[in-house]
Amino acid sequence: MHTRESCAALDRDDPLAGLRQEFMLPEGVIYLDGNSLGPLPRAALERGRQVLVEQWGAGLIRSWNSAGWFELPTRLGDKLARLLGAGPGEVVLTDTISLNVFKALAAAVRLRPGRRVIVSERDTFPTDLYMVQGMIEFLQQGYELRLTDEDLPLERALDEDAAVLLLSHVNYRTGALHDMAEVTALAHRRGALAIWDLAHSAGAVPVDLRAAGADFAVGCTYKYLNGGPGSPAFIWVAGRHQDQARQPLSGWWGHQAPFAMAPDYQPAPGVRRFLCGTQPVLALAVAECGLDAALRADMRLVRAKSLALSDLFIDLVERRCAGHPLTLVTPRDPAARGSHVSFCHPEGYAVIQALIARGVIGDYREPRLMRFGLTPLYLRYTDVWDAVEALRDLLDNRGWDRPEHRQRGAVT
Amino acid sequence: MHTRESCAALDRDDPLAGLRQEFMLPEGVIYLDGNSLGPLPRAALERGRQVLVEQWGAGLIRSWNSAGWFELPTRLGDKLARLLGAGPGEVVLTDTISLNVFKALAAAVRLRPGRRVIVSERDTFPTDLYMVQGMIEFLQQGYELRLTDEDLPLERALDEDAAVLLLSHVNYRTGALHDMAEVTALAHRRGALAIWDLAHSAGAVPVDLRAAGADFAVGCTYKYLNGGPGSPAFIWVAGRHQDQARQPLSGWWGHQAPFAMAPDYQPAPGVRRFLCGTQPVLALAVAECGLDAALRADMRLVRAKSLALSDLFIDLVERRCAGHPLTLVTPRDPAARGSHVSFCHPEGYAVIQALIARGVIGDYREPRLMRFGLTPLYLRYTDVWDAVEALRDLLDNRGWDRPEHRQRGAVT
Repeated sequence: MHTRESCAALDRDDPLAGLRQEFMLPEGVIYLDGNSLGPLPRAALERGRQVLVEQWGAGLIRSWNSAGWFELPTRLGDKLARLLGAGPGEVVLTDTISLNVFKALAAAVRLRPGRRVIVSERDTFPTDLYMVQGMIEFLQQGYELRLTDEDLPLERALDEDAAVLLLSHVNYRTGALHDMAEVTALAHRRGALAIWDLAHSAGAVPVDLRAAGADFAVGCTYKYLNGGPGSPAFIWVAGRHQDQARQPLSGWWGHQAPFAMAPDYQPAPGVRRFLCGTQPVLALAVAECGLDAALRADMRLVRAKSLALSDLFIDLVERRCAGHPLTLVTPRDPAARGSHVSFCHPEGYAVIQALIARGVIGDYREPRLMRFGLTPLYLRYTDVWDAVEALRDLLDNRGWDRPEHRQRGAVT
Repeated sequence: MHTRESCAALDRDDPLAGLRQEFMLPEGVIYLDGNSLGPLPRAALERGRQVLVEQWGAGLIRSWNSAGWFELPTRLGDKLARLLGAGPGEVVLTDTISLNVFKALAAAVRLRPGRRVIVSERDTFPTDLYMVQGMIEFLQQGYELRLTDEDLPLERALDEDAAVLLLSHVNYRTGALHDMAEVTALAHRRGALAIWDLAHSAGAVPVDLRAAGADFAVGCTYKYLNGGPGSPAFIWVAGRHQDQARQPLSGWWGHQAPFAMAPDYQPAPGVRRFLCGTQPVLALAVAECGLDAALRADMRLVRAKSLALSDLFIDLVERRCAGHPLTLVTPRDPAARGSHVSFCHPEGYAVIQALIARGVIGDYREPRLMRFGLTPLYLRYTDVWDAVEALRDLLDNRGWDRPEHRQRGAVT
């Protein structure tokens, strides 16, 4: 049976405890939303100043060369590759997940001519589906989006017409984790290519794209990789596809010789052809600080602590908030989940708002889900204890039942 | 006949002189490359710190609402609209020019069904052409890119098959300026829509998109708008097209109700449907400082000073560097040029490198072009004098004729 003291003991023995000091965490806040936006690495402040004052201010246009701005997408991509089981020259940091989904998708369908079905999940993060829909409607070549759900399991959805399987590695609502190697192998047996969206796994769950035999992957850097609000996304392309893969967002940064200014597009070799236009240097440069922090942690220790924190959270909520209408939505089996945990509550929205007002920051996802990120780089076991105590107090005293907690903001 | 003293007198009488102090300009540098990357507004340093420390660091995920992050693309778009002759709800700051070209193009061709030709210029900035090529190759619906050049004038290129005309308002190499209203009217008479790339005119040349009757426009904020390296681009959609226009990069930020997380895409009303994925907040927020500086200047005064600086530059180069093989490539007629001036020199690359080494920063464009931006917000008439004197000294003494000046960097 956990107590606050036993949690404090776990903190004392935590081999990752030292990493917490790399982040600025506001006083009086327990941050359980690093699965949505990671906190500020302390190094980012100095990096931001350096890019603004030294590189932009003093260096001006010269910094494209002297400060290596032009190489940021590939240099940071090579760093990130180490967290994804990928090799150098396989990843670029660029654009947004949505756009990178489009690129991967467009490249993938052309590698599977004749097949016209794109398979995905009904409850995946919707922007992935929107990008499929945008492409299908634009192409008008008879493509079809087929969504798996309770009535249509993946096994059946992947038939001989399936060109591409597009899946979230970890589901944004439930935290359910796919076995990437197993699902990719299934897609391949059916003749389809697999695109993985790592938004909710990169930096939180061990990912081995090469070992899993995946074809394409995309993801973001602002969640578990602590890159900053809206920091650039990434795309990975398996080495075996790089020379044939073509994507239609063929801007000058993806050109073989961008500064030759030739009127005809020639794709750069390798993953660089998945770049398009000029990238936001400040956002990219600052994102490196988060990447560096993640690279200092042993991913096996990160995974172990992530599951330990999640187990603790689930156990404490279920025991200490027993009697309240809370239902665990996340798989109970540690092997089947990512690094966040969701509970359903009929008044989930108001409860989360009330929790946030008390300094315990989680978030809300439709319908009725309270979502909590258990992020090993900066969370303590005692934070989990304290967060659940705040939740218990709120539920026991109906502290969420106030008009101001029901009011909706633009971003929920 | 100009002298340094007459230039100093012009500086004393310059009604825009006070704006120079809003920018950080390094000692010993004359910056004639603001047409490629504008300098750092002083306010950007504090804005960057505020976004990093207060909004991201202390506010964390809450800042999506409390700091207005989610509204940055539309709020800044409304500000920028005032410089473009556009109205509120018509502009968003987002993504890159290349991507916005793709969106505008994809929307435009669907508004002109049956027509299969996209007309552009052979010597426009190539990424615009690359995006057309990417779209055409992807669609496989018989679209064709038709490029105007000496052999094919616009008059002839725009025939009854022309769906879209895609032009740079100001040419990136020569500085030649199109008459937007006249060319748009020609396109419309032929039944085509007009997309304008304002990369080299927004913030430097008066732009009146509504008065010109244009259909779509795109541009960047890192040149004359001083938004920072790779700061987000913009897209404008004429009010009359907004409800019918559909673009395939249909990410969640362009959804009618992004947080409903519905599996089906429904485009937001207005220009917001041209948003796609999560935007780089830090880069966007900092870009506002450059916008604010531009909005403090009267655009008629900006244009007048731009032309006065350019006239002075052309006159001084031609008189004081007479005898050297320099050829003006930019139109001599002020009404026919933007805000940069290019000279051809057989050793243009080495000359520019040598000039940069002396603190006079221009840039180079293939083939043999030396390009100089005359930016009214922070350049003085005496800067132009001093820059030309440096050039004269370099040419008179073959100061460019050294191996280190011929060496090519990644970005030229």
